[in-house]
Amino acid sequence: MMSDNGDAPRVDGRRLRYQNRRGEILTAVMAHVLEHGINQLSFRKLAAAVGVSHVTLRHHFGTKDDLLVEILGSIGSRTPIPENLGDADIEAVIQGLWQRWMQPATDQRSRLLFEAYGLAVRNPDEYRAFLDRVTTGWINMLRHHALRAGCPSDEVDDFATLLLAQVRGLQFDLLATDDRARLGSAIDSVIDGIRQQRARWAELANR
Amino acid sequence: MMSDNGDAPRVDGRRLRYQNRRGEILTAVMAHVLEHGINQLSFRKLAAAVGVSHVTLRHHFGTKDDLLVEILGSIGSRTPIPENLGDADIEAVIQGLWQRWMQPATDQRSRLLFEAYGLAVRNPDEYRAFLDRVTTGWINMLRHHALRAGCPSDEVDDFATLLLAQVRGLQFDLLATDDRARLGSAIDSVIDGIRQQRARWAELANR
Repeated sequence: MMSDNGDAPRVDGRRLRYQNRRGEILTAVMAHVLEHGINQLSFRKLAAAVGVSHVTLRHHFGTKDDLLVEILGSIGSRTPIPENLGDADIEAVIQGLWQRWMQPATDQRSRLLFEAYGLAVRNPDEYRAFLDRVTTGWINMLRHHALRAGCPSDEVDDFATLLLAQVRGLQFDLLATDDRARLGSAIDSVIDGIRQQRARWAELANR
Repeated sequence: MMSDNGDAPRVDGRRLRYQNRRGEILTAVMAHVLEHGINQLSFRKLAAAVGVSHVTLRHHFGTKDDLLVEILGSIGSRTPIPENLGDADIEAVIQGLWQRWMQPATDQRSRLLFEAYGLAVRNPDEYRAFLDRVTTGWINMLRHHALRAGCPSDEVDDFATLLLAQVRGLQFDLLATDDRARLGSAIDSVIDGIRQQRARWAELANR
């Protein structure tokens, strides 16, 4: 696109550098908050940790609250909602989440997620997009899988709401207690419960 | 108790005033964090808000981290685990939680609780007592009620773990979406599920 003075390449180059720089800084910010969290985040310390001045950080991201909104947006979009599981069934979705939580690398992300929940419910208007993504976004994904698995449409809201609640609560329990034996057994029960529901849905359909 | 110099009343009086003062300040601190949260808590701003100098606050509570540990301890102990429900059954426990969440006054407490979860999973060693209380503490209460309701002992860990997870996840969903119709229906399903489990437990016992 041409700028007003016709000097398009220079302007585009600047824009590109600006956007690259912003993306690079955000990547460094995310690495920092994954390790150190977002509670008690200090703008100056964060700037020092990612190797820019706090003026530069402010220039690219605005206030600390603006930056937190961006961080939570980034957490939300990086938390892979497994919409693209294709033909994976709902039991496989849950099993996949559990497998992922068992990997030590996921711990940092899970911790950050719960910090983000705490921050977001304190300021729900500011973090509306994040809260919608981690509730309605996930519920819609689970609804989709449940309907494909035969869940009657008048049961699907309850099913998806309860399954998401259960999975989120178990994730917190795992972070809090690291009691993998108890929680592994609980996840197996969740999956058994889904199988029993599916059998009931199949019966309903065959009546 | 006599002090070394035999001047017991004066020493006890001092202790009492010190402890009263500490308790008063903690009450004011709790009122402040219920309204304003614990994310981004500033020691100086907090001191100003509760009407003491930050030196006094530090004198009574130590560092900001020490104070946060105390705040989370206070949240944990103020969150009433309904152990004293006496003969109330487990459905009544869940129904009671839901009724409480529906009261606007509970919102602040629920928000603070989720902030505390986020802070605690970031520093699980420091907040071990809080994390144990909100996981193992609640699970033991639910186990107790489930066993009384006839839950077989080899199922009770799964039952209590899953029920707590579900309830905690629903509480987050309510804070995030305020979708009371969907969540009220989900809670009804939880209670129906418990009734079905109880019927199954009764059958097992009668075999």
